[in-house]
Amino acid sequence: MTAVGIDAIEIRTGKLQLDLPNTFAPKKGEDPEKYTKGLGLETSSFPDVYEDIVTMGANAAKSLLDRKGLAPDEIGRIDVATESAFDHSKPVSTYIAGCLEQVYDGDFRHANKGERKFACVSGTQAIDDAYNWIRAGRNRGRAALVIATDTALYERGDPGEATQGAGAVAMLVTEDPSIVELSTEQGYGSMDETDFLKPNQQFPSVDGKRSMQVYLSRMREALEDYESIVGPVEPDTVAYAPFHTPFPGMVRKAGLFAYRHITRNTSIEDELADSIGRQPREDDYGSREAYEEAISEYMDALKGTDRYQDWYAETIEPTLGLSRVVGNWYTGSVHLARTSALRDAAERGLDDAFVGERLLVGSYGSGAQAEIHSETVRPGWREEIEALDIDEQLASRYDLSFEEYTQVHEVHDYDKSVDVEEFTVPDGEFVFTGWGRMNERTYDYVE
Amino acid sequence: MTAVGIDAIEIRTGKLQLDLPNTFAPKKGEDPEKYTKGLGLETSSFPDVYEDIVTMGANAAKSLLDRKGLAPDEIGRIDVATESAFDHSKPVSTYIAGCLEQVYDGDFRHANKGERKFACVSGTQAIDDAYNWIRAGRNRGRAALVIATDTALYERGDPGEATQGAGAVAMLVTEDPSIVELSTEQGYGSMDETDFLKPNQQFPSVDGKRSMQVYLSRMREALEDYESIVGPVEPDTVAYAPFHTPFPGMVRKAGLFAYRHITRNTSIEDELADSIGRQPREDDYGSREAYEEAISEYMDALKGTDRYQDWYAETIEPTLGLSRVVGNWYTGSVHLARTSALRDAAERGLDDAFVGERLLVGSYGSGAQAEIHSETVRPGWREEIEALDIDEQLASRYDLSFEEYTQVHEVHDYDKSVDVEEFTVPDGEFVFTGWGRMNERTYDYVE
Repeated sequence: MTAVGIDAIEIRTGKLQLDLPNTFAPKKGEDPEKYTKGLGLETSSFPDVYEDIVTMGANAAKSLLDRKGLAPDEIGRIDVATESAFDHSKPVSTYIAGCLEQVYDGDFRHANKGERKFACVSGTQAIDDAYNWIRAGRNRGRAALVIATDTALYERGDPGEATQGAGAVAMLVTEDPSIVELSTEQGYGSMDETDFLKPNQQFPSVDGKRSMQVYLSRMREALEDYESIVGPVEPDTVAYAPFHTPFPGMVRKAGLFAYRHITRNTSIEDELADSIGRQPREDDYGSREAYEEAISEYMDALKGTDRYQDWYAETIEPTLGLSRVVGNWYTGSVHLARTSALRDAAERGLDDAFVGERLLVGSYGSGAQAEIHSETVRPGWREEIEALDIDEQLASRYDLSFEEYTQVHEVHDYDKSVDVEEFTVPDGEFVFTGWGRMNERTYDYVE
Repeated sequence: MTAVGIDAIEIRTGKLQLDLPNTFAPKKGEDPEKYTKGLGLETSSFPDVYEDIVTMGANAAKSLLDRKGLAPDEIGRIDVATESAFDHSKPVSTYIAGCLEQVYDGDFRHANKGERKFACVSGTQAIDDAYNWIRAGRNRGRAALVIATDTALYERGDPGEATQGAGAVAMLVTEDPSIVELSTEQGYGSMDETDFLKPNQQFPSVDGKRSMQVYLSRMREALEDYESIVGPVEPDTVAYAPFHTPFPGMVRKAGLFAYRHITRNTSIEDELADSIGRQPREDDYGSREAYEEAISEYMDALKGTDRYQDWYAETIEPTLGLSRVVGNWYTGSVHLARTSALRDAAERGLDDAFVGERLLVGSYGSGAQAEIHSETVRPGWREEIEALDIDEQLASRYDLSFEEYTQVHEVHDYDKSVDVEEFTVPDGEFVFTGWGRMNERTYDYVE
């Protein structure tokens, strides 16, 4: 069976940054380590006044098409995943295609465009749709363009304010892909939950504690579902485990839960038993409370073992690199985690030796659903990853003062109308220019 | 290759109706025939005060699962298509799954849930995703549940007000389906258009004239794209052509355009040439204007021929039956058109003779995209279609006075908060009960 997967990735960050320990924490009267150590975040990305989910998505897509030398008619499908849409009917993919058609000869007239919504998990769902479309023999040799684009804003003062972020990840899904092949097998954990939602409102209603519990429960169910198909996942067969990263601290927690799960009934559990005992089994306890207390104690002990710490340092920690400096990109987040992992592999000097290695990818969306699948590294991975210019983008972000941050927040608040000067100068990119006669947002390309 | 397609359909109309010629037209001071003859509409459906896109979708889905004897764990995927979503993050499919889990043993914990948005075309896109998922070998023997649900409301006084409607179509997509097999081949016509959109607003901004032009242009391109794969579509090979039906008058127009297109360079064109001449070719005219005038004259003449009128009466007119009495259901509309066609075939007494016949299905969404594919009728079609209870539902709708209609419009306007008594009594169905602590909408099942 021909491999199908991700052939190319381009990332576009919002061009502004907020320094959490040095700008945000002092204004909040908080210890900077609450952000850097607790949440695991250094800086957040924000869109400049002329940026939004369309410009970030279109700019990422243009970089991707340019680098791969693709013409519009070589794209058979454009799917956008977002939870920041500004229209209840017209999909963001049509706006992005309209932008791209301003600068390319040819058009996307025969490409299927769409939009998916399910909190942060829909970027992965859009990739799956593209994969299935190719496997179903409907692509006629063409590639799918998948764009995960979001501006994650919370009400000012909401506990989520420190986890904000904005950016887009554009991915090309093809046969015989350069970066990773996707597994046919997928596991799902999905239940109707009221942990995070946006009922007719731009900024979310969030039950933070519940949201963390739901993340862990749905991820466990997705992993169990995945294992029901492929058999037990063994820790040493996973090179990296990129998870959805609302903030790195969440993944630190999830990593420990995942490790406990995948080492249960393995030789690793046996080897660790001398120092921390075996994992508690519910049948051995008289009550759910006693069992949970024992689990909690075991987890604390497990976290302190070299074995776990080594696994975490190799498998999880490297997936958090980009998230730490850009915040939560919602639909793009897990795709940043994958990219961070591959960047780590490249920095470690891996090349052919990394081909065939496996990533265990965990996506999640509140509301709530987790998805687990695996990806196998392909021979072209390193060239693709080294072509990314995200380091240059990050280095050239404008560093906001707190007062400027409050202005930027208002600029992107749909209920406010404020006039703020742009902080950076657009250069060879799509920009938001205002509203047309039917309240549509309008865009231009600036040379 | 195993057939994949639509195995079962259930339809749920809003429980209220507005009589256009007898209630709406007199208040507007309009000739009733403007609605019945011009638009082709008799009545519109509206949701009662305890109905919305979730209850209509969940009630349709429950009927479908009950009739097919399916348990939740036999469903691997629940996708909702809508342009009436009330949450920017949490998909309607989770609300519907939550409703269903109130009444069934078991749950949809390992089903992939999602939501698609692209005006009225996303119902078909969701079916395609389900088809591709099965073809990709990812369904593990499970079926996909696809629900197209919408409440189509316009600003009071908008020209679109007469085309409103509300209802849900639930469809089961499986291997070896009972109703129709879907073609692998699909044609698309898709461009960035500002014809109809809802930029941060519940009710649409509409350029009615432009929207009709765009519908025709994108449909033509989709048909050309489809023919580029399968070869020319011949009129006599199509039993029915269900199209997206914003109002029957639009499809009457589209049908004529389609017939001109598919008879060009055929023996039908030759046979008609004696009475109305051959179709104008652009190269034979000195200017675009002269060519378009000739086309317009040819179309007028073509419309008057027995040959066209017979084709229209057999192939198009029967697809409009449900649309005439329920209005525009947006994402559900083309699926109502398919159902109307199949009901016509059953009323004509067809049974085995209809198996293997072909439908040419044209979906459309403003913004804008058309999709064309074909469907082949399967042996179980008649039993499935005869199981529908839509006639009983239509007959028991509450007939609104104009004053009551204005109240119902306000009940479903998100910017208004009005207290209106329900017009009907819920009976064995899901109902909307209010809002929870995070502004989520809440639902119960009423025995």
